[in-house]
Amino acid sequence: MLANRRTVRIEWGDCDPAGIVFYPRYFAMFDHSTVLLIERALGMNKQALYTTFAFDGFPVLESRARFLIPTRFCDDVTIESAFVKVGRTSFGVQHRLTKEDALAVEASETRVWVVRDFTRPGGFKAQPLPADVVAKFSATTVSA
Amino acid sequence: MLANRRTVRIEWGDCDPAGIVFYPRYFAMFDHSTVLLIERALGMNKQALYTTFAFDGFPVLESRARFLIPTRFCDDVTIESAFVKVGRTSFGVQHRLTKEDALAVEASETRVWVVRDFTRPGGFKAQPLPADVVAKFSATTVSA
Amino acid sequence: MLANRRTVRIEWGDCDPAGIVFYPRYFAMFDHSTVLLIERALGMNKQALYTTFAFDGFPVLESRARFLIPTRFCDDVTIESAFVKVGRTSFGVQHRLTKEDALAVEASETRVWVVRDFTRPGGFKAQPLPADVVAKFSATTVSA
Amino acid sequence: MLANRRTVRIEWGDCDPAGIVFYPRYFAMFDHSTVLLIERALGMNKQALYTTFAFDGFPVLESRARFLIPTRFCDDVTIESAFVKVGRTSFGVQHRLTKEDALAVEASETRVWVVRDFTRPGGFKAQPLPADVVAKFSATTVSA
Repeated sequence: MLANRRTVRIEWGDCDPAGIVFYPRYFAMFDHSTVLLIERALGMNKQALYTTFAFDGFPVLESRARFLIPTRFCDDVTIESAFVKVGRTSFGVQHRLTKEDALAVEASETRVWVVRDFTRPGGFKAQPLPADVVAKFSATTVSA
Repeated sequence: MLANRRTVRIEWGDCDPAGIVFYPRYFAMFDHSTVLLIERALGMNKQALYTTFAFDGFPVLESRARFLIPTRFCDDVTIESAFVKVGRTSFGVQHRLTKEDALAVEASETRVWVVRDFTRPGGFKAQPLPADVVAKFSATTVSA
Repeated sequence: MLANRRTVRIEWGDCDPAGIVFYPRYFAMFDHSTVLLIERALGMNKQALYTTFAFDGFPVLESRARFLIPTRFCDDVTIESAFVKVGRTSFGVQHRLTKEDALAVEASETRVWVVRDFTRPGGFKAQPLPADVVAKFSATTVSA
Repeated sequence: MLANRRTVRIEWGDCDPAGIVFYPRYFAMFDHSTVLLIERALGMNKQALYTTFAFDGFPVLESRARFLIPTRFCDDVTIESAFVKVGRTSFGVQHRLTKEDALAVEASETRVWVVRDFTRPGGFKAQPLPADVVAKFSATTVSA
């Protein structure tokens, strides 16, 4: 399925007193990687999603990560993100963060396509992914 | 095994444009919960660990979380954290975040007791947990 | 004018590779301190503000801070926050962060009471502070 | 004096429930901008500074910012950072963040060149900037 790759410079403020990335910051990087992957798949950014679809977000249902090699500030790392599953209301994304070609962090997440549920304050409810979205997430390449 | 409980107020800055916690922030809360759990188990804070043991940290090897109910700024939530496994060089912690007694987030992590590995810049290597630490992590209560 | 005081434990994740607080984290602490100060003054939390007033936030117009003494993870610090000026559409808050009674950080901020400006995407416009809000911010004590 | 410019995409996780940047995140962006400015001036990254100089960091002494126009997730903004003063032990940096050529945030900071002060836990003491560093920070262009 569709993948996207980007390079990220590990910043001083991403790192903890041990000099390595404070691991919650990896999830912030992966969150943005998913946003960019979806932007690439759909050809529109997240702001546009809100006005194009009956859509209030794609919150994370489940997340997991393995941390294999620590990364430090000033490291340039590569994050490769790809759809790994596209279901009726949910989809899965996998992230591989490499440092000099060695796998440093491997993570996966399941997200759900939602609209607001006005019966509960702050609540959301799952919605079927639009057919066009399913097709584009499932494609191996971005269509012209 | 030993558990610790604390109450956390969800802050404005923890939340995203959907008005709910930006999920990497949960991992930051859980990280601090683990620090407090260990502080309670050992009767000393993390600063003291560095001077008491041949110790350079307990980085996360693996982390996973399920997000069941969104939480919003101004919510007061409870995080209960407990050791679930104590191995030779690693240990497991489980976190349960509840909101008005309903389980909102469930997470678990595996951490490893390390010292610096000076053969690799920024590297660490696993160390056996000191026997006293194993005993205190495995106890069901804090001994007097 | 009204003041509020709270104790904050400096967390591992607040600190940078030098072992001291990454200074943007101080602003996050002060932001929450202002939220708590206003909650104390008005007797309602920020969620309630949205439903009580024609109100869409109190963004920061101007912020400044002086960093006098570094603080480290495991430090327990005290943040004292007080209104220092209440104008027609804006108000000022001062924060003093102390560590063992020594002033470590001193900061001040000017905020504006706003509603959304639907003529500009993401825009806000200043609104006069409600008279009741002015009175409560200006009081030296919380009235019974 | 020397300036550096970079483009930053405002991320979902940088923004608060009002949909605009949570202002402490601007300081994190500016911190990294200063790191990049210094890297450009000296031709080495922050990791290398530690091994090249008697150097333990350049913490912020004073910081101020004015927030003129809110920025939202998906905005592409430009941050231009420049040295504005180079003193004996300290230096000043100014940041201008623009959005579609309009000034959105203006900030300045004073930093001090330090080494660790082992007489106080977590303490630092000011050091004269090396002459070579002064020359490079003061130059209007990067010398070949």
